[in-house]
Amino acid sequence: MNNFEFQNPTKLIFGKGQIGTLANEIPANSRVLMLYGGGSIKKNGIYDQVKEALKGFTHFEFGGIPANPEYEVLMKALAVIKAEKIDYMLAVGGGSVIDGVKFLASAALYNGDTPWDILKNKIRTFEGLPFGTVLTLPATGSEMNSGSVITRAETKEKLGMGGPGLFPKFSILDPEVIKSIPKRQIANGVVDAFNHVLEQYITYPVNANLQDRISESILQTLVEVGPVVYEDPTNYEAGANFMWSCTMALNGLIQKGVPTDWAVHAMGHELTALYGIDHARTLAIIGPNHYQYNFEKKKEKLAQYGERVWGLTGTLEEKAKAAIDKTVDFFHSMEVKTNLSAYTDSFDGTAQEIKERFIKRNWVGIGEHKDITPDDVEKIVELSY
Amino acid sequence: MNNFEFQNPTKLIFGKGQIGTLANEIPANSRVLMLYGGGSIKKNGIYDQVKEALKGFTHFEFGGIPANPEYEVLMKALAVIKAEKIDYMLAVGGGSVIDGVKFLASAALYNGDTPWDILKNKIRTFEGLPFGTVLTLPATGSEMNSGSVITRAETKEKLGMGGPGLFPKFSILDPEVIKSIPKRQIANGVVDAFNHVLEQYITYPVNANLQDRISESILQTLVEVGPVVYEDPTNYEAGANFMWSCTMALNGLIQKGVPTDWAVHAMGHELTALYGIDHARTLAIIGPNHYQYNFEKKKEKLAQYGERVWGLTGTLEEKAKAAIDKTVDFFHSMEVKTNLSAYTDSFDGTAQEIKERFIKRNWVGIGEHKDITPDDVEKIVELSY
Repeated sequence: MNNFEFQNPTKLIFGKGQIGTLANEIPANSRVLMLYGGGSIKKNGIYDQVKEALKGFTHFEFGGIPANPEYEVLMKALAVIKAEKIDYMLAVGGGSVIDGVKFLASAALYNGDTPWDILKNKIRTFEGLPFGTVLTLPATGSEMNSGSVITRAETKEKLGMGGPGLFPKFSILDPEVIKSIPKRQIANGVVDAFNHVLEQYITYPVNANLQDRISESILQTLVEVGPVVYEDPTNYEAGANFMWSCTMALNGLIQKGVPTDWAVHAMGHELTALYGIDHARTLAIIGPNHYQYNFEKKKEKLAQYGERVWGLTGTLEEKAKAAIDKTVDFFHSMEVKTNLSAYTDSFDGTAQEIKERFIKRNWVGIGEHKDITPDDVEKIVELSY
Repeated sequence: MNNFEFQNPTKLIFGKGQIGTLANEIPANSRVLMLYGGGSIKKNGIYDQVKEALKGFTHFEFGGIPANPEYEVLMKALAVIKAEKIDYMLAVGGGSVIDGVKFLASAALYNGDTPWDILKNKIRTFEGLPFGTVLTLPATGSEMNSGSVITRAETKEKLGMGGPGLFPKFSILDPEVIKSIPKRQIANGVVDAFNHVLEQYITYPVNANLQDRISESILQTLVEVGPVVYEDPTNYEAGANFMWSCTMALNGLIQKGVPTDWAVHAMGHELTALYGIDHARTLAIIGPNHYQYNFEKKKEKLAQYGERVWGLTGTLEEKAKAAIDKTVDFFHSMEVKTNLSAYTDSFDGTAQEIKERFIKRNWVGIGEHKDITPDDVEKIVELSY
């Protein structure tokens, strides 16, 4: 087991009918900015519940934060924060809205030239404007971590940021929101969370028995409940396990003491930037091919995954290979396609283009060994056609 | 899954050679009181490492906190805190020292007549004197939770306290400390942590798939590494998994969204109070008989435990019964005896006496259904002779 540090101060409030409790979590006399996305919360009743809970506060609204939250849009929200002297934010949405609010939490207290520096220069945030979240779409785990990914449309860039100042003060997770999520988004959430675990688990063994088993617990739970909630989003119990699994998949716990990969995300982000493919689906496209391409380096953990999550038997190689197939089948079971050709007609040359984008950024190596080169990236993306 | 709230702000610093980092965690200019137990830290080098790390601070020492930390001793430490204007504490020890320091954290800021009220009147602590810990004995999980159990020798009372003000600010977990722990204490730690999980898991199913699997992960890990570290405390990898499992067993995570029992602890505390039997061993004495006595109410979870942790097959009843036997065998594999008669010659009438102590305290019911009566307690303790 590797040395590690772990701290996660976010307060989680999980369960039925919990949205109303948010007023207890926001300091009295706060000037609150409520931020949300495309407006689906106005149809499913969440908007009304939040507005009711915010009655006692001076509060303002900023809607329209898009999927893959855009810098340009967020800069408009920042202007509202400054103009209205906002001192508390409430993100009501999924990972995109929460990630956007994390950027704002940092930008609101940033004293440099332009908030873009936070992303460009990888400036860690030790203190941010405080915020809470009401999660409407389980997937990214952003509700209980301190990371964020922001997109700049004009340059087709997707950059990460983070720091201990960016944990939500509280997050309300009410599984009842799941019943009004479109099936496509539920499939995305399951696949996203599943891949988050794989990125922290399909590496190489370091005798981290407990971390491995907790990762397998999340994977097993997603295998059990993912297709159930996809078929019937009104199944509260399956939905609650889906929601809790998404949070646990990326709240920092399972990455502690183990190597992590994240190459699938690095490659997947390029597919979103180039084709606008849903983030989770880019992971389903790249992941299995990445595991196939790096089979020798990952086969011990692939076999362990195959045995413990999928009940596979056979030699180490047989279990490892079959585990990749099972993963693909699992994504297919929720109608998530795993070939790039299913998403675009113009994929010729994509691998070459992504390779060049990697070279341009001087990325010397990704993956748990930091040994995956731009040439490897090209081959992995080619496999995914 | 039941509704729940979860928040745990403790910063964990886990791994080899981490004790020296504690100076970074204590605010500059703090007046620090270092507290420890019987002095084993002076033999194994931990005392010297901590003293070296504290060089830059005005600091004081208070040693001699006994197992089952005693109120009378702690009141002497409280006098030091007041006299020396201590504003930060450092607990260097196992659960007893850390629990004692939690009491002091509360008592130091308590304005009532006598700090005993905190225990007697179950006063929750929302703000405590800040403290960190250096864990020297994995077992209780106190290093990452906000609970504490204090003993008053003169009245043979063992009472609990807690509250969000009692989380350690940081805890340093260096698995290298394990190599100098006596084997008896290692067995106690494994059995203690194992029972902590069982108390939160062997109840009845509530569709908390992920929590169940995480509980099983901790149990499986303890089954794997417990006997290994018992045989060879210098095995760092086994020790690290043992240490991490103990923390995860009682840091609040696995109890969220599920019913919890804790009747085994309630009965076990009486055996410690009456006979001075090690806490963990009282759980090994009571636990299996408790599960046997309440078999019908617990058989679904017992069978699940038997199947997933022990690989048992058969009917639900067969798996459930064999799971209890496996648990007893596991305790025996670390030379922990599971009959009261192995610990004392004078056990006749113990069950009756414990029953009467329960009645005197007006405890109307314990266990996950709150339906275990003093008569049941008598019968369970009798089974354990």
